Amino acid sequence: MTISAFDHPFLSGLLGDEETASYFSAAADIRAMLAFEAALARAEAGHGLISHEAARHIGTVCATFEPNVLNLRTATARDGVVVADLVKQLREAVGEPYFDCVHLGATSQDVIDTSLMVRLKAIAFLFSNRLSKLAKVFDSLDAQFGKSALMGRTRMQAAIAITVSDRLRAWRAPLAGYRDRLTEQGFPLQFGGAAGTLDKLQDLAPAVRSALAQELGLSDTPQWQSQRGVVADFANLLSLIGGSLGKFGQDVALLAQAGDEIELSGGGGSSAMAHKQNPVAAETLVALARFNATQLSGMHQSLVHEQERSGAAWTLEWLILPQMVMATATSLRLALELAGNITRIGHKS
Amino acid sequence: MTISAFDHPFLSGLLGDEETASYFSAAADIRAMLAFEAALARAEAGHGLISHEAARHIGTVCATFEPNVLNLRTATARDGVVVADLVKQLREAVGEPYFDCVHLGATSQDVIDTSLMVRLKAIAFLFSNRLSKLAKVFDSLDAQFGKSALMGRTRMQAAIAITVSDRLRAWRAPLAGYRDRLTEQGFPLQFGGAAGTLDKLQDLAPAVRSALAQELGLSDTPQWQSQRGVVADFANLLSLIGGSLGKFGQDVALLAQAGDEIELSGGGGSSAMAHKQNPVAAETLVALARFNATQLSGMHQSLVHEQERSGAAWTLEWLILPQMVMATATSLRLALELAGNITRIGHKS
Amino acid sequence: MTISAFDHPFLSGLLGDEETASYFSAAADIRAMLAFEAALARAEAGHGLISHEAARHIGTVCATFEPNVLNLRTATARDGVVVADLVKQLREAVGEPYFDCVHLGATSQDVIDTSLMVRLKAIAFLFSNRLSKLAKVFDSLDAQFGKSALMGRTRMQAAIAITVSDRLRAWRAPLAGYRDRLTEQGFPLQFGGAAGTLDKLQDLAPAVRSALAQELGLSDTPQWQSQRGVVADFANLLSLIGGSLGKFGQDVALLAQAGDEIELSGGGGSSAMAHKQNPVAAETLVALARFNATQLSGMHQSLVHEQERSGAAWTLEWLILPQMVMATATSLRLALELAGNITRIGHKS
Amino acid sequence: MTISAFDHPFLSGLLGDEETASYFSAAADIRAMLAFEAALARAEAGHGLISHEAARHIGTVCATFEPNVLNLRTATARDGVVVADLVKQLREAVGEPYFDCVHLGATSQDVIDTSLMVRLKAIAFLFSNRLSKLAKVFDSLDAQFGKSALMGRTRMQAAIAITVSDRLRAWRAPLAGYRDRLTEQGFPLQFGGAAGTLDKLQDLAPAVRSALAQELGLSDTPQWQSQRGVVADFANLLSLIGGSLGKFGQDVALLAQAGDEIELSGGGGSSAMAHKQNPVAAETLVALARFNATQLSGMHQSLVHEQERSGAAWTLEWLILPQMVMATATSLRLALELAGNITRIGHKS
Repeated sequence: MTISAFDHPFLSGLLGDEETASYFSAAADIRAMLAFEAALARAEAGHGLISHEAARHIGTVCATFEPNVLNLRTATARDGVVVADLVKQLREAVGEPYFDCVHLGATSQDVIDTSLMVRLKAIAFLFSNRLSKLAKVFDSLDAQFGKSALMGRTRMQAAIAITVSDRLRAWRAPLAGYRDRLTEQGFPLQFGGAAGTLDKLQDLAPAVRSALAQELGLSDTPQWQSQRGVVADFANLLSLIGGSLGKFGQDVALLAQAGDEIELSGGGGSSAMAHKQNPVAAETLVALARFNATQLSGMHQSLVHEQERSGAAWTLEWLILPQMVMATATSLRLALELAGNITRIGHKS
Repeated sequence: MTISAFDHPFLSGLLGDEETASYFSAAADIRAMLAFEAALARAEAGHGLISHEAARHIGTVCATFEPNVLNLRTATARDGVVVADLVKQLREAVGEPYFDCVHLGATSQDVIDTSLMVRLKAIAFLFSNRLSKLAKVFDSLDAQFGKSALMGRTRMQAAIAITVSDRLRAWRAPLAGYRDRLTEQGFPLQFGGAAGTLDKLQDLAPAVRSALAQELGLSDTPQWQSQRGVVADFANLLSLIGGSLGKFGQDVALLAQAGDEIELSGGGGSSAMAHKQNPVAAETLVALARFNATQLSGMHQSLVHEQERSGAAWTLEWLILPQMVMATATSLRLALELAGNITRIGHKS
Repeated sequence: MTISAFDHPFLSGLLGDEETASYFSAAADIRAMLAFEAALARAEAGHGLISHEAARHIGTVCATFEPNVLNLRTATARDGVVVADLVKQLREAVGEPYFDCVHLGATSQDVIDTSLMVRLKAIAFLFSNRLSKLAKVFDSLDAQFGKSALMGRTRMQAAIAITVSDRLRAWRAPLAGYRDRLTEQGFPLQFGGAAGTLDKLQDLAPAVRSALAQELGLSDTPQWQSQRGVVADFANLLSLIGGSLGKFGQDVALLAQAGDEIELSGGGGSSAMAHKQNPVAAETLVALARFNATQLSGMHQSLVHEQERSGAAWTLEWLILPQMVMATATSLRLALELAGNITRIGHKS
Repeated sequence: MTISAFDHPFLSGLLGDEETASYFSAAADIRAMLAFEAALARAEAGHGLISHEAARHIGTVCATFEPNVLNLRTATARDGVVVADLVKQLREAVGEPYFDCVHLGATSQDVIDTSLMVRLKAIAFLFSNRLSKLAKVFDSLDAQFGKSALMGRTRMQAAIAITVSDRLRAWRAPLAGYRDRLTEQGFPLQFGGAAGTLDKLQDLAPAVRSALAQELGLSDTPQWQSQRGVVADFANLLSLIGGSLGKFGQDVALLAQAGDEIELSGGGGSSAMAHKQNPVAAETLVALARFNATQLSGMHQSLVHEQERSGAAWTLEWLILPQMVMATATSLRLALELAGNITRIGHKS
């Protein structure tokens, strides 16, 4: 439970973000996977593939079903994915005569990728909201200190005087674009069946897929089981956000080092030097930006996805994407905290 | 002259792309930088900052000026950028009384980043065109072989039968989106002056910038000297393209290994085994995809850009971006070649 | 608690390794940090800096002290490191008159880096042991099937016949070197004080450091607070191990796809296709190799460590290194499992 | 010819290193490949596989042979490697009756990997020499300024006073270890034949391989065609060197920004601000360190090498390794220049 600093018992104080982390709990994933199964049953009932009664019963079971997680763990070790066993457990809970109506025509990847999309969509709105808040804090600093002088620095050396407004613009300018991209981008349903062809649904496939997308609030696109651009592209957006916030953090750390151009409240202590105030959030923003930049490479390696489904490339995403989301969440949290701790910036004139 | 396989005397046969490489010659860069200086003079003359006569003279000189490249090299070693010396040489060529009208209010980064954007814009259209051609080759394969059976493979193992159309869809589907993004995205002018504030142009700054953008066919946005999202984002698009083509290459290599599902013309020989036919382009597509995925990380590290201009982060872009462009260009060239070499795909039925 | 697949409630069945994970629990880290404080007290008592009675008392308290983890978490958020608060809590537990004898002359980084080294040393021996076991499994396969024929494949295509021994050699050859490097490499004590100069210990610094290293079973070297080669180099070794095992996994997946050259017991099921046997461990080895190769980049970014201590570069290590260790642990576990599941390799002759 | 900044007409002034670049010219590669063929003939003659006369004649031809590079380029496009055509051209130059004595039992990878190792060995000694020089410059700075006071800085903030000696130790300490590793590490011959089994040499294979290794001054180890640890490990060493020098550069840039703790001669000008002195070499060292850290990831991705020879993984090495060598060469050159330009460090006391 403590491999990742993002949910480590004490490191998470610095590096965690509970609001975002909740979307990556096993429970949240299971809820989203069960929501997929319930919605699938409704969509298939709507097109006569199973009875409405079956769909209602499956929906009722899914609403409260709690799978045996230990069994899920054992099965994941064997199958490489959790879904086969989850569906097995769910079918047993649903029982006859609707046993075979569960998961009809779907495959593991449909469930897992869709669960991810449902949760990423919620996270995107959360991040968008934080970006708006951060822009407002920058606006407020601008209103307060914008006309103060600041030494403009290029290539790490004093250049010519600028204003605090000029520097703030560099911090704030990219945020609006990120916010728009987070909320305007589509989060696509994954629904392709065993080999991406929805072979069991035959002619009804497009209609069921469309209904399923609507049920889940996702965009309706053909399956992208082996075309991972949508995931790699989202990772890029996360790293852009983290990178821009890392630039803000780097600048604050340099301002603090220079000594007279910024005043910060808060800030960390040292076990060896009681007098020191460390701009911990500023440095952490840099660390998180470099972390995301590192991870992005792995997400793009996953684009080389063999044939209809690559276990290797897909598993690599699972190892990386949740951490990029968390790094970005924490960056946003810390940037808000750091910007809020700026009690003065620029030279008193 | 042979550090990079992309322009190596013999490796470039496999890994190069002359059409794209021409945009990265020193001559092409210098031409684009001189075009910036000429356009700047025109834009400034249009707003009364220099005389129209000065602008005309500067334009005439820029049209034919050939700087001493050895001096540029020596100066780049000292200054970290080529522009100070290029402007010095250009001013000498322009001579009095217009000496001081050259490069008025601009800084090195304006010239270098804008030269890059002008050339990337042209390259984007070139790539867009290749993507269209590739989509057409896939369409043609679909028309010819789409209904043939192919073994669908998931997790590297035979799953269920699909059609050639199904597989082709996975290869072709991402291309249209990439094409649109290449041509619809803005390529922004960089114009900020010494510290990004266009301090020497005062109230005329926005108007001059707007005119300059129009002159150069770039979009007019405030300077992004320390906000490198535009460059990192373009790199992401390059890696998405290369990654999708790498997936195509990987699939072809696996089809060729399986032995009876694809027939390819062309293909490479072996120094030790005369009988072998190697799907060289297929494997190279994989190499290029992994190359781009690797490089993208460095482009995102560059987002942590200190203060008004980071020499470190900016230089890192120079080391990486041209190679990503080339890797993508070569991927497109090889994917076209490979798709064109498919003489049969799927099982004869 | 489920951000990382390595300790996820169900994904850890596939991707976790409990034996190794135990070294990264908060409890294990705290124990190792308290062991540092106890050993430091003994070493300082041995050189007259504190009384032997103080060292004994501190040692006794450290042996059973359980810090308030919630407070540690809050403090880490503020200070960027856990140590200041851990020492504060420990001092309170030690009480007067030995309060000031705790942590004398040390700094946070000494405690954290040393705790890491103590645990990495144990992990290195664990990994070395697994490498030996794996070599033995390969030896046993060689004894059983070594003379069987296998199609040698180059550039993804059939080349000439080789023997199973030939292929096994490629899998086994790198292991011995890795094993030696794991056990022969020094795991250095970190001990430098506030700015790396052990300023509070004056002339006694070298002797105390030497005694402390001996107490903890680590090698005695001058502080390396800002020189992170030792950590980056260990990460390289982890990625080499994972990479070689990834090559083994890739080869097994390709053998299984070809169909008649390998027989595997175990293997995973599919939620959509009951007949399929997926070589899940083989693919996971590839995913883990690519994961480590990705992470290694971030560990090397951490080499650019500002001045006497970089919070940014150091924090980046915390985000990455534990995961690389886990990826390698799981690779070793899965490689052992996969090699053990090979019931036949090569063509029956 | 200008894709790579390392050999760009003007950027190479800053980023190039001619001495090292010469090892990567096509001519140097061809010379080393011909040296392999000549040495192979001698080794095979020594064991009776071909006549001594044949070996002498092949040696004479190899000594002066200049292949048609345009043909090599065309063939590389087709074959994915240069060797098949190089050997064809060489055989024609050798003519009958020794035509078939050329390249006997060898494969492309033997020639290419061995050519690389021969050149990397020379480069390693060159780098080792530069590391020694750099250590001496640091020693000399220590003798001159070692006792001067410097503000120790942790987490980007002033901590406690240290001496210039303390800081210099952090810069110099890693160098000796790197130097030893460069010169003590083995550079192994690659010799395995078509599928790594030296099938054509039968019982004589070990003896011929040993003789060949001795001829070329390389270490004699079994082929490592698909086991790329040796290359990935060398890349790691390059990145460690570049990373430590990047830390030096980062520190100098920060010292220069603080303003009163360092004096540098040389340094770059600005096109917009005549008064500025930019520590260009310092920033470039940071860029090169981050470049190498980025590239290292790709070298480790190449460890996942399919079967007996992966065209994809191998080609990826060609795209990356020469650039890592160059980045390291330039780092060493710039570090020497920068250290030599320090005219004062620390506070005058």
